[in-house]
Amino acid sequence: MRTTTRELVEKMKRGERLALAKLMTLVENREAETAEVMSAIHGIGSASIIGITGPPGAGKSTLLDALTEKLRGLGRKVGIVAVDPSSPFSGGAVLGDRIRMQKHFLDEDVFIRSLSARGSVGGLARASRDVARLLEASGKDVVIVETVGVGQSELDIMRLADTVAVVLVPEAGDTVQAMKAGLLEIADIFVVNKADRDGSAKIKTELEQMLHLRPPDGWDIPVLMTVATDAKGIDELVEAFDRHADYLRSSGSGARRGAAGRRSEFLAVLRDEIGRRIEGALTDERLGGLLDRVQKGDVDPYGAALELVGDRALLEHILAQPGEG
Amino acid sequence: MRTTTRELVEKMKRGERLALAKLMTLVENREAETAEVMSAIHGIGSASIIGITGPPGAGKSTLLDALTEKLRGLGRKVGIVAVDPSSPFSGGAVLGDRIRMQKHFLDEDVFIRSLSARGSVGGLARASRDVARLLEASGKDVVIVETVGVGQSELDIMRLADTVAVVLVPEAGDTVQAMKAGLLEIADIFVVNKADRDGSAKIKTELEQMLHLRPPDGWDIPVLMTVATDAKGIDELVEAFDRHADYLRSSGSGARRGAAGRRSEFLAVLRDEIGRRIEGALTDERLGGLLDRVQKGDVDPYGAALELVGDRALLEHILAQPGEG
Repeated sequence: MRTTTRELVEKMKRGERLALAKLMTLVENREAETAEVMSAIHGIGSASIIGITGPPGAGKSTLLDALTEKLRGLGRKVGIVAVDPSSPFSGGAVLGDRIRMQKHFLDEDVFIRSLSARGSVGGLARASRDVARLLEASGKDVVIVETVGVGQSELDIMRLADTVAVVLVPEAGDTVQAMKAGLLEIADIFVVNKADRDGSAKIKTELEQMLHLRPPDGWDIPVLMTVATDAKGIDELVEAFDRHADYLRSSGSGARRGAAGRRSEFLAVLRDEIGRRIEGALTDERLGGLLDRVQKGDVDPYGAALELVGDRALLEHILAQPGEG
Repeated sequence: MRTTTRELVEKMKRGERLALAKLMTLVENREAETAEVMSAIHGIGSASIIGITGPPGAGKSTLLDALTEKLRGLGRKVGIVAVDPSSPFSGGAVLGDRIRMQKHFLDEDVFIRSLSARGSVGGLARASRDVARLLEASGKDVVIVETVGVGQSELDIMRLADTVAVVLVPEAGDTVQAMKAGLLEIADIFVVNKADRDGSAKIKTELEQMLHLRPPDGWDIPVLMTVATDAKGIDELVEAFDRHADYLRSSGSGARRGAAGRRSEFLAVLRDEIGRRIEGALTDERLGGLLDRVQKGDVDPYGAALELVGDRALLEHILAQPGEG
């Protein structure tokens, strides 16, 4: 790790916002020092990481706003990561959301970061997780990760959270859709927002019936009713988050901090680091020769990859590269 | 490659549908022999690989149906890969689509395969590309890859195609949305479907104006009008696909077969193969020790990955593993 990066980490730990923002950019861009930064901040801080997901139009942003206000009222420091892996077709109104959150911009104890898909979706999920951890290390008590829409990408991103709230609205078919979309498997809390609308009692009943079919696992998934625009039901929501955090602590079943999570994270980082070294070695004359043949079409890409993996001396040479910046 | 897999490849090349289906399952599951199978079929066959994408509700499936009918009428063999990386919230009607395509089920020269996200989105894009190539190797003249919805995942998948058709409908805002969603960058052909509806002339004009702002690159992106339910405009669409294929051949700018495409494919396969070997080595006692410490939380996942990548002897030992089945 370069001295400047080490300094950034120290400054971030002391609460400097600019240093935090710079480190976020570093991990978002998956720069060479990402793993070293993440290793350096490992175990620092202790935040509840909350995921909020649900279909477009469910009022997630208004809910996030009301929730932030409530948490600040309780004196908790809040970090927000707004992730948009989807296209505008799915109905996100990102600009509007940002404007709505502006009242928190002057609050030193709220830090908001937007992330969108630049490269691969897998990269976005890893960047989101790392940005959330930076917020934790910077001293936030609660880190909220919000996604626009509900696709496979959003499900991937939600894996980083300790507690996931799935937000639905009282509209026909939403329950069935939620099941199909795999939301039932990831929800720790269901929120029926816009609960002043027709059909809210019906969707609550449907969800509860659906939840009764699950095998019991120590945590009863609550179905809460909110009207985010009037801040109704927000107290109960914060209480449910706290109860779930208690449950994770007492049962030791916090998935993010569990053995399985650490294992898959280790493997993902390992793949990333090795990939980075390979890309860093692209100009190496020995690999360059093979790459040249691939680019000219003289060897097929699969055959060439197998050839390289089978050439231990070359492979070892590549992995000794520092990785590209 | 095991003898049975080699036999499957031979049978597939002779046109046996069951062998083709088995190989598709193998690559879809990213089994250990995937790279060897893909290397073995490299360069076999010569199909136009067409991508069809666009927002939910644009009538892509009906268009696909009409297109298949037309291509079969011209005596061309057709492979179809229907990819669904998104959740039902984005509006796909996969079951309905499959039923609609049933009339082609008895046609020996049409092969339809559905793929959905099981693991990562990146894995789905690679599986889609490999399934399309298996269809090419099995002797199809045209392989059509259709996605439900338009997110980052769909854009990733569309990179496999020689020619991409973006399907829109005459509805307010679609043009602007298409721009934002990055569809303008990937479209080789625009299709305004349901062109008997109000507003179709307007969206055609908007698209054409937008396209005029692009720097010229040798291919004028046409904006075609179709009414897929009545098979209107399908002849012109097939003609546009053929013109684009001619353009790719004469200009040598076929992205899929280009140097850049081969390079990124080589790197992706290399990362996959190395990752596979690492996962295969998980039970190795030396790596097992490190993994154990990660799972217990004694070392952080990032630090452990850096430690492993820095330990050349261990890394070399791991990479000598055959990879997991």
